[in-house]
Amino acid sequence: MNYFSSDFKLGILGGGQLGKMLLTETRKFDIQTYILDPSAEAPSQFGATLFFQGDLMDYNTVYQFGKNVDLLTIEIENVNLDALDQLEQEGLKVYPSPKTLRLIQNKGKQKDFYSEHNIPTAPYKRFTNKEALITSVENNTTTIPFVWKSAQFGYDGNGVKIIRTQTDLITLPDTECIAEQMIPFKNELAVIVTRTPSGAIKTYPVVEMEFHPEANQVEYVICPARIAESVAQKARAIALQVSEKFNHVGLLAVEMFQTEDDNILVNEVAPRPHNSGHYSIEASYTSQFEQHIRAILDLPLGNTDSKVAGIMVNLVGEEGYSGPVIYQNIEKILAIDGVTPHIYGKRETRPFRKMGHVTIVNANIDEARKIAEVVKNTIKVISASN
Amino acid sequence: MNYFSSDFKLGILGGGQLGKMLLTETRKFDIQTYILDPSAEAPSQFGATLFFQGDLMDYNTVYQFGKNVDLLTIEIENVNLDALDQLEQEGLKVYPSPKTLRLIQNKGKQKDFYSEHNIPTAPYKRFTNKEALITSVENNTTTIPFVWKSAQFGYDGNGVKIIRTQTDLITLPDTECIAEQMIPFKNELAVIVTRTPSGAIKTYPVVEMEFHPEANQVEYVICPARIAESVAQKARAIALQVSEKFNHVGLLAVEMFQTEDDNILVNEVAPRPHNSGHYSIEASYTSQFEQHIRAILDLPLGNTDSKVAGIMVNLVGEEGYSGPVIYQNIEKILAIDGVTPHIYGKRETRPFRKMGHVTIVNANIDEARKIAEVVKNTIKVISASN
Repeated sequence: MNYFSSDFKLGILGGGQLGKMLLTETRKFDIQTYILDPSAEAPSQFGATLFFQGDLMDYNTVYQFGKNVDLLTIEIENVNLDALDQLEQEGLKVYPSPKTLRLIQNKGKQKDFYSEHNIPTAPYKRFTNKEALITSVENNTTTIPFVWKSAQFGYDGNGVKIIRTQTDLITLPDTECIAEQMIPFKNELAVIVTRTPSGAIKTYPVVEMEFHPEANQVEYVICPARIAESVAQKARAIALQVSEKFNHVGLLAVEMFQTEDDNILVNEVAPRPHNSGHYSIEASYTSQFEQHIRAILDLPLGNTDSKVAGIMVNLVGEEGYSGPVIYQNIEKILAIDGVTPHIYGKRETRPFRKMGHVTIVNANIDEARKIAEVVKNTIKVISASN
Repeated sequence: MNYFSSDFKLGILGGGQLGKMLLTETRKFDIQTYILDPSAEAPSQFGATLFFQGDLMDYNTVYQFGKNVDLLTIEIENVNLDALDQLEQEGLKVYPSPKTLRLIQNKGKQKDFYSEHNIPTAPYKRFTNKEALITSVENNTTTIPFVWKSAQFGYDGNGVKIIRTQTDLITLPDTECIAEQMIPFKNELAVIVTRTPSGAIKTYPVVEMEFHPEANQVEYVICPARIAESVAQKARAIALQVSEKFNHVGLLAVEMFQTEDDNILVNEVAPRPHNSGHYSIEASYTSQFEQHIRAILDLPLGNTDSKVAGIMVNLVGEEGYSGPVIYQNIEKILAIDGVTPHIYGKRETRPFRKMGHVTIVNANIDEARKIAEVVKNTIKVISASN
């Protein structure tokens, strides 16, 4: 198959910032790309060959979109899987496959999958609804404290809650869920794995999420993680196993915990380019976005090593500001060597909205870490009208 | 001025591959960008906020286009300068300025400018037409052999000819021209300089053009050049001087000769992103395209150092093939670590047409050089119908 400057058409479901960064790579390779997104103001509205506005959860919209392309991928998990099943049955290549996505979309099924395949993960119980969970707590079959997770449609901390008292149960939504044992951990880590339809597979180096000491919020994604080489090797081996067991094609971000005794537990996966891999655009020989395109097209995978150390800082809307966005002090961070802001293209800021990210690269990781802190304390995502 | 996710509009005259690679950066920063190009199939037709089809040499087309934007730049020199003059007079920021472009567009004026400012360049004579040149040769005021250059509209070797005999004169077009003394040189070098409206200025490392031993064609652009540090420093100092004397804003590629006795002579300049800086996308902390955007917006200039060594190989259409392009063996070069093809997005190949380039990066420059040769000998730009 000839993908370059040809009639071949790649379809992407979802047109957010991940889609936008994928488009940088499809443009570089001159691959025709169609995008489907519900918003006319989606970050991916520019750079695609054609942009379609439509509902990603609607069977007909997704099915019809799929009929126009030669290969289909996603940049968001929550899409109509029945349409993907049908398209796949009709012979369209869909990567990742709807079968894999169905397992991943439901956190209960995802956890069962880890258990069945002996992939280390925190102990858990599944519940079909809120009442079943409450009964289990009352019977002492489930012990407080625990981590509650909605089985479906949770992202970025939505749909996750730590239950410390019986009272905490009251406000939970009535939905399918899991209760997961709380595991004290040293580090939150992530490994991006890429796998091709032919089964070629590569992992990126382990990254580390550094949390704000008080706010319990990820502040920095650091590559390479500042952990023992033996732990890094273990984490990469487990991530490889997860991708293979899922029979996954494309990019899979595997989020993990490093426990106090240096065990690795898989937390959850994202079957697409991921926030924890954004550093790769500037730091790696092959960015995660180029790698995803290589993988789904069954092209050789690129080198996942880093040229230099990389740290990523998210740009989220400051509390107290809503309206047309202003990136205050962006010129100050641009004046620092090795600092690259990525602006996702959302015209309006809102508190905690993901508006962009900044990558800091440096030959020296400790220097990069110092600069990252300066960046974090300098740039503010605000609005003139608050 | 707020450029990011704002109403600010950047205009770019020209929508070829340089425009396309500039758009990668304007998308990264979410800067609204309008493009004007004569071809509806221009590589920059995607990725801009708006794409306009129109003649770059037509006064009204360029003037009207300029009235829609807040700042105007170019990715090709041959544009209507009278329109730019008028726009500048009406208050539009035009970088580089039409005054600078007028000096650069005419190679005779460009050479005079170097002489006036004591910038080292090969000795030359200017002629208003072919007859004046022939008379000068007949009077022995101009001595054969020499290098003939058309004063205007030459690019990529067009409009340049080595005159070795009287007979060579006959086929020359009747046009304003210069006759330049032939200087034996060791190396052809280039330095990219970037300058902001505020006068901040930075040079990139010196790159070296390595020629095919027989074909006298540039095969590799190598960064850093494999030359003595003292020569590199001299070249960067001269490039800096050229940019300052031109009062240039934006990217200026300064092409130079390193003579047998290690002097530097300026050959010519290109007032825009340049082939000799393509390596910077993968190898440098700041790509030349991002740097041009930073410069014209008067933002702080980025770090021009390299993360790793970089070598660029041009992808040009093979002789004997015309028609829908096929990048033969592209999957073989993608299998090599640190190899990135850039496909410009031209559907049809023709002999010697610039269709793309490949960057090879490696921590070790000698290793990169070996890989570049493998790449060069592997990928072929052909067509099924020849």
